[in-house]
Amino acid sequence: MAKITIIGTGSIGSAVATLAAKGGSEVQILGRNETKVAEVAKEVGASTGTIGDAITGDIVVLAVPYSALADLAGQYSGQLDGKTLVDVSNPLDFETFELVVPADSSAAEELQALVPGASVVKAFNTNFAATLVTGQMGNGVPTVLVAGDDDTAKQALIEVITAGGVQAVSAGPLKRARELEGLGLLALGLASQEVIGWTGGFAVEK
Amino acid sequence: MAKITIIGTGSIGSAVATLAAKGGSEVQILGRNETKVAEVAKEVGASTGTIGDAITGDIVVLAVPYSALADLAGQYSGQLDGKTLVDVSNPLDFETFELVVPADSSAAEELQALVPGASVVKAFNTNFAATLVTGQMGNGVPTVLVAGDDDTAKQALIEVITAGGVQAVSAGPLKRARELEGLGLLALGLASQEVIGWTGGFAVEK
Repeated sequence: MAKITIIGTGSIGSAVATLAAKGGSEVQILGRNETKVAEVAKEVGASTGTIGDAITGDIVVLAVPYSALADLAGQYSGQLDGKTLVDVSNPLDFETFELVVPADSSAAEELQALVPGASVVKAFNTNFAATLVTGQMGNGVPTVLVAGDDDTAKQALIEVITAGGVQAVSAGPLKRARELEGLGLLALGLASQEVIGWTGGFAVEK
Repeated sequence: MAKITIIGTGSIGSAVATLAAKGGSEVQILGRNETKVAEVAKEVGASTGTIGDAITGDIVVLAVPYSALADLAGQYSGQLDGKTLVDVSNPLDFETFELVVPADSSAAEELQALVPGASVVKAFNTNFAATLVTGQMGNGVPTVLVAGDDDTAKQALIEVITAGGVQAVSAGPLKRARELEGLGLLALGLASQEVIGWTGGFAVEK
């Protein structure tokens, strides 16, 4: 049984908590708002805490906006060494609809530089939360694209996801996070233009 | 009825010819190899010519590798003004599996700079040829993602595609070609790792 800590109680944090619990993982939820933490935790039978509390998971999902990543990494510096650190962010300026990371980098690669002792994995940023909760997208099953340099860390996350009934595949090394963040931008663009809905997105057909 | 010229007789050129003809477009095929041109043209009832011959289409698809785009644009300089110019390329180094265009640009934007009088549209680079020919991907229909700054040009191409039985949506302005080329890289990466087959790819679920 995997131990997974999710920091953040927004739609994607809550969705990953549901998915992980469905797959039998032991879930810890940490967040700023105790009421919200309790609410998400109750639904999935998770343990709770506030940001700053000790992390119990071996897989740590930073389910916070891109702008909050650096502070959070600093706050947990040292506690993240040896852990699988999952970046779900879409580093966008939502007014201009442009990526705010340098074109030759990504939020995930920036995070890896901040926390060199952890194994950073990019995942979930190309999936809308509702599809992770239901395990359905259109007539099929959503696929989580996972990028990372540490194959063991990547595989551990893939197992958590597939145990919860959602497909997951490796999209390659961590530098592929650049393209995954581009894909997140495309998905959010299509949804904001109402070409697709928030229960849709990019599916992987084999 | 749209008039479409396809330059190139490789798998994607041939697939776009089939798709356009299926939708009732008048198709011209231009290529270096006369035998190959005749072969593709015969299947779809297209007119033929060699590279350098006059273009009869209002929509011109450059179905050639990225490395051949600049020369072709130079050769047809002047003849492309006012036309919809479709870039299908995936500008990859297939040994290192990296994009060879600058990270803050794209093959399509480079082409637009070379041919300022044409309306460049990025399309087809995220689709595998077989899915365009059959109109099927998994249990669904493939979607062509189309990026361009000229809405009329984009819409004209979208109509050619949808008339042929394949879905097509606008992915935004031409600068989104950057993310489409990233998505092409992801699709080719998944196929080269045998995570997906050449009849699969990224589907758009509404």
